Amino acid sequence: MKFEISQIGIAYSPYTVKEDCPVQGMAQPLGKGSVEVFPEFAEGLDTIDMFSHIILFYVFDRASEVSLVRIPFLDDNPHGIFATRHPCRPNKIGISIVALDKKVDATLEVSEMDILDGTPIIDIKPYVPLFDLRPQASNGWIKEFRNKPHGRE
Amino acid sequence: MKFEISQIGIAYSPYTVKEDCPVQGMAQPLGKGSVEVFPEFAEGLDTIDMFSHIILFYVFDRASEVSLVRIPFLDDNPHGIFATRHPCRPNKIGISIVALDKKVDATLEVSEMDILDGTPIIDIKPYVPLFDLRPQASNGWIKEFRNKPHGRE
Repeated sequence: MKFEISQIGIAYSPYTVKEDCPVQGMAQPLGKGSVEVFPEFAEGLDTIDMFSHIILFYVFDRASEVSLVRIPFLDDNPHGIFATRHPCRPNKIGISIVALDKKVDATLEVSEMDILDGTPIIDIKPYVPLFDLRPQASNGWIKEFRNKPHGRE
Repeated sequence: MKFEISQIGIAYSPYTVKEDCPVQGMAQPLGKGSVEVFPEFAEGLDTIDMFSHIILFYVFDRASEVSLVRIPFLDDNPHGIFATRHPCRPNKIGISIVALDKKVDATLEVSEMDILDGTPIIDIKPYVPLFDLRPQASNGWIKEFRNKPHGRE
């Protein structure tokens, strides 16, 4: 079954090439960026600034072709694509948890940004500790939080 | 800009109508379910069972039409759709964090399930505490974790 999704906005960041982009936003807590939501969806942002953190959903629009098993950024062993956050997935959807600093009209100013400049945004949801915290979860094969430059793609 | 996404699998759960479904999986930690990944994507699951928790991405295939501002399940005041997890979003993509109990071939047996039976799965990512924990985040307008039946749709 196929589904069509539409862009609802655009991400702006200092990262224009993947080599500059942190592997995860937490590695760059001061990395500033913004999201501009298109006017026809702006009303959907009402009260979003009650949350300190939001989850951005976007399309990895510059990802290479799908690769079901690969060596990810943070390990030297191969893993299935669903055991990684790598962009080269069957459906090229990415998520990033970012800190919401300020809402100005339909623009969200954020920190902890790890998204390439110009990336199409397709959804925004609140990050809710009551729903989203699993401190007991394992980190799987991710042994340490190396912020290795994205050399592999 | 439009993007096409394809189903990669299917969710099975005891919940056939939304009234039976917990608002969030954490409300039903023993709620068992499974995900069957289609054979052509099965290789992508390699080593996923190194993780205790995964994030399921799916399409809210039974959601009603888009509503940019609405009263959500857990509050009595209206909020913009991007300030809620409600299904009636411009792009009907949902996420659920579930506990991965067991992988048997291309089937993932899970707990903390809150997805309707038969829901199309479009992506699976590992839940990684190193990336995904924001214990300091605010819960916004979500004051308490009421597991109210889904009366509003």
